[in-house]
Amino acid sequence: MARHRVLTGITTTGTPHLGNYVGAIRPAIESSKKHEVDAYLFMADYHALIKSQNPDLVAQSSREIAATWLALGLDPSATHFYRQSDIPEITELSWILTCNAAKGLMNRAHAYKGAVQANEEAGEDPDYAITMGLFSYPILMAADILIFNANDVPVGRDQIQHVEMARDIAARFNHHYGETFVLPKAVVDDEGAVLQGLDGRKMSKSYGNTIPLFGTPKQLQKAINKIKTNVLEPGEPKDPDTSAVFQIWCAFASDAERLEMRSAFEAGLGWGDAKKRLFERVNDEIAPARAEYDRLMANPAELEMILREGAAKVRPESQALLEKVRTAVGLRSFS
Amino acid sequence: MARHRVLTGITTTGTPHLGNYVGAIRPAIESSKKHEVDAYLFMADYHALIKSQNPDLVAQSSREIAATWLALGLDPSATHFYRQSDIPEITELSWILTCNAAKGLMNRAHAYKGAVQANEEAGEDPDYAITMGLFSYPILMAADILIFNANDVPVGRDQIQHVEMARDIAARFNHHYGETFVLPKAVVDDEGAVLQGLDGRKMSKSYGNTIPLFGTPKQLQKAINKIKTNVLEPGEPKDPDTSAVFQIWCAFASDAERLEMRSAFEAGLGWGDAKKRLFERVNDEIAPARAEYDRLMANPAELEMILREGAAKVRPESQALLEKVRTAVGLRSFS
Repeated sequence: MARHRVLTGITTTGTPHLGNYVGAIRPAIESSKKHEVDAYLFMADYHALIKSQNPDLVAQSSREIAATWLALGLDPSATHFYRQSDIPEITELSWILTCNAAKGLMNRAHAYKGAVQANEEAGEDPDYAITMGLFSYPILMAADILIFNANDVPVGRDQIQHVEMARDIAARFNHHYGETFVLPKAVVDDEGAVLQGLDGRKMSKSYGNTIPLFGTPKQLQKAINKIKTNVLEPGEPKDPDTSAVFQIWCAFASDAERLEMRSAFEAGLGWGDAKKRLFERVNDEIAPARAEYDRLMANPAELEMILREGAAKVRPESQALLEKVRTAVGLRSFS
Repeated sequence: MARHRVLTGITTTGTPHLGNYVGAIRPAIESSKKHEVDAYLFMADYHALIKSQNPDLVAQSSREIAATWLALGLDPSATHFYRQSDIPEITELSWILTCNAAKGLMNRAHAYKGAVQANEEAGEDPDYAITMGLFSYPILMAADILIFNANDVPVGRDQIQHVEMARDIAARFNHHYGETFVLPKAVVDDEGAVLQGLDGRKMSKSYGNTIPLFGTPKQLQKAINKIKTNVLEPGEPKDPDTSAVFQIWCAFASDAERLEMRSAFEAGLGWGDAKKRLFERVNDEIAPARAEYDRLMANPAELEMILREGAAKVRPESQALLEKVRTAVGLRSFS
């Protein structure tokens, strides 16, 4: 029996930070190593164009993200790792699905509705500054998923709706044109670690509270030193459960190390010492990957080759599926 | 200096009738023979998917339309004649333009607004039964035009807005990312013959009043005999200017023949005789093309080869333009 296919898209905007690592990259790479799944991981650079009209940032982020995943242990020979824009079948399928998707379905997408609401609250036209990219991206996402017959799509809660739309579009297509697509399922991992940022809120680029993943050790140390703490002095007992320092520690420590740190907090460990220990722990885990990241960033030809090989590995599949779809809708060779 | 590029899309739905021949096909083929223009004519089969979810009809219509144009004298070696779905760069460009097109622009498209109005008048939800294909087809049309740097796009009045949208999207893109696209212009030919149908209204599939183009001579004769006339007997003078028989005659006759027929009407030519003369005139013009049409329809491999050669001829251009666009937006090779 074919192994379960798990598909993950990585939007290529921004530079990965420690929160991305703990919340998304590390678990996805771990899961890709399981024998029972067939992992598809792709750099969603067509999606990046929705979010960024800065070409240099799009190009730079794409390189950084590819290097990050590979440096952190993603094995391109044991998985399917490719760049979305190397698979032209995706945009072609996207158009065919566009012809079969109801506009009413897109009207109900949370991301679009959120943008409309923000415009209305600001007294603007409902569609002010909304591009067709934002409006129709659930269709592109459906094409990403359906072109490789993915079974499971691990997502955050905010993305469940989009996977359900992909499922809906696939089911309608199958009903009208005959069995063509596997119906995908959203897999939500609520236990997925959400890392706290410098201010204790969720670590996120939009809050400006991130810790860099592959900065220099000095930059890492400096960022960790900025984590907000209270004014308790060394020697005074501290509550680990309200401290971002402890929360981040836990994301990197073994069970034994967690217990030990909890005791140390309660015994009055000073903030300076706690941060020093945190820096060392994080740096230990990250240092080998950082060296590999730096090496890959200095060797763009190697990175490029890995992604091209990834595309060459999956394109026979996307081409075969697209051919099936084209025949189903009537785009057929005359002879 | 590069010759002016004129681009014409032919939506592959339905079987061409005499009105299509006189109003669109004949003038486009004549214009493609002019030395000062570089003609791009394509079978718009991605667009056909918006209008038809019947795969056999889409495939059949595509074959019939290709055979029709070739039989009527379109010279594939002197023009660029290709099938839209053989140019995957078009859907890829379409996605990139999607990310740069305002949703508000699509909201204002006449075709979409017309569909919304019809829904509202019927008491339905405004977007009832409207697909994303209908809503976003101006973007696909922009990609059709921009991918080949077309200067002029000959269109009917109802399509002027879409060419202007393509121009608008191109100008915004050029402004933001640097000179990339030629700005296309709609060329409206108001003198383009509108042929009357059996009932005297414009000949149109939707009115069910068409005369087949490549039926058998018998079918042609039968259809012409059904043209609505008045009850005037032979010998009674007839008004040529209110007769569909005379109007269709004029679309096929020389100036001298027109004058002669006008006199014959005024001298009391009987309807039966007039229709017989019309049939002979139309059949004379069409018979050689009909034989070639039948030959091509019986040789799908030849048709397929002509279209593949057409695609091979234009793809170096579409690939080069797409590469320029990809670089502009940041979808770049790492090395």
